[in-house]
Amino acid sequence: MWDLIEPAAARRLLAGAVALFAERGYGGASTRDIAERAGMSPAAMYVHYATKAELLFTIVRAVHEAAHAAVVTARDAAPGHAARVRAATYALARFHARHQQAARVTQIELAGLDADRRAFIQELRDGTDAVFHEEVRAGAEAGVFDVADPPGTARAVVSLCVDVARWYRPGGPRTPEEVGSLYAHLAARMLAVQ
Amino acid sequence: MWDLIEPAAARRLLAGAVALFAERGYGGASTRDIAERAGMSPAAMYVHYATKAELLFTIVRAVHEAAHAAVVTARDAAPGHAARVRAATYALARFHARHQQAARVTQIELAGLDADRRAFIQELRDGTDAVFHEEVRAGAEAGVFDVADPPGTARAVVSLCVDVARWYRPGGPRTPEEVGSLYAHLAARMLAVQ
Repeated sequence: MWDLIEPAAARRLLAGAVALFAERGYGGASTRDIAERAGMSPAAMYVHYATKAELLFTIVRAVHEAAHAAVVTARDAAPGHAARVRAATYALARFHARHQQAARVTQIELAGLDADRRAFIQELRDGTDAVFHEEVRAGAEAGVFDVADPPGTARAVVSLCVDVARWYRPGGPRTPEEVGSLYAHLAARMLAVQ
Repeated sequence: MWDLIEPAAARRLLAGAVALFAERGYGGASTRDIAERAGMSPAAMYVHYATKAELLFTIVRAVHEAAHAAVVTARDAAPGHAARVRAATYALARFHARHQQAARVTQIELAGLDADRRAFIQELRDGTDAVFHEEVRAGAEAGVFDVADPPGTARAVVSLCVDVARWYRPGGPRTPEEVGSLYAHLAARMLAVQ
């Protein structure tokens, strides 16, 4: 998730902050704890992130941008209505298993962002939701899916994938790819792909 | 949810604490805030709940017990494999919409319970999960469901219902009963009810 973040010190801060927020919650982790976890002084941390809120926003934004990119890339590479929904579902479920900790921190702490940042993130979320809504609607219109309630069903598919971050544990019986495959299959079932 | 709690002061404390935890998080709400919200002094509050942790545990326990009871009651009243899974799914999804705030507080703050209390709650959760696992397994064995991965599919049905507490908002376009009906239908689809 953080591979593209430069320099390495900023990357270490983000990874350390995610682990600390997951353990103690955003409120329970001080900037001093976060700096220490990354092996630097609080003063050195402020060079990269002026506040703890800035650090949280960077995490929440990165999670949403990466999830959106994964979904769009998967959809665009797939041919036809059914393959597109399957690919998008696979990508979103796998993402929430692979990046379980960062995604879980994001879900729990989202409400604590200030109003402007929350609005920014909401737009990213809406964009990802819209991919599913649009695919379900288009497939239903084309007669490829049999769906009585396209928006409710699209939301259910997204919800199923997002909730993976709540229950998934790395090292458990299923790989992120196995969760993705199962969920792509279940989404196709929910849509009654013809 | 709190109708059975006596006396009325304890009931007011629970309802007020849920609202405050939802607004500010468990860490952000003091016992003084909670007592004030219920119109009493901190000293009067301690008569009912010795600590804030005790109050949170009471909430988390009540949510899990009520969800479990709703699922079991619905299942027991339904005839046949398909009807039982539909009824249990309807009950669990509707519960998480009706009691969205208390269920959401429970999900977010669960990790903050001490080890003994968390183990107690985990047993309640496991009991509810087991209802779905057992129904899916039995229906698959009887040839009424067509499921390649019964445990993974049972978990997905539960996850779908539980995540309602994350996205549902009272006063939105769907009633809890409508969410329950849609999700019962989607669960039947996921199981390919024959």
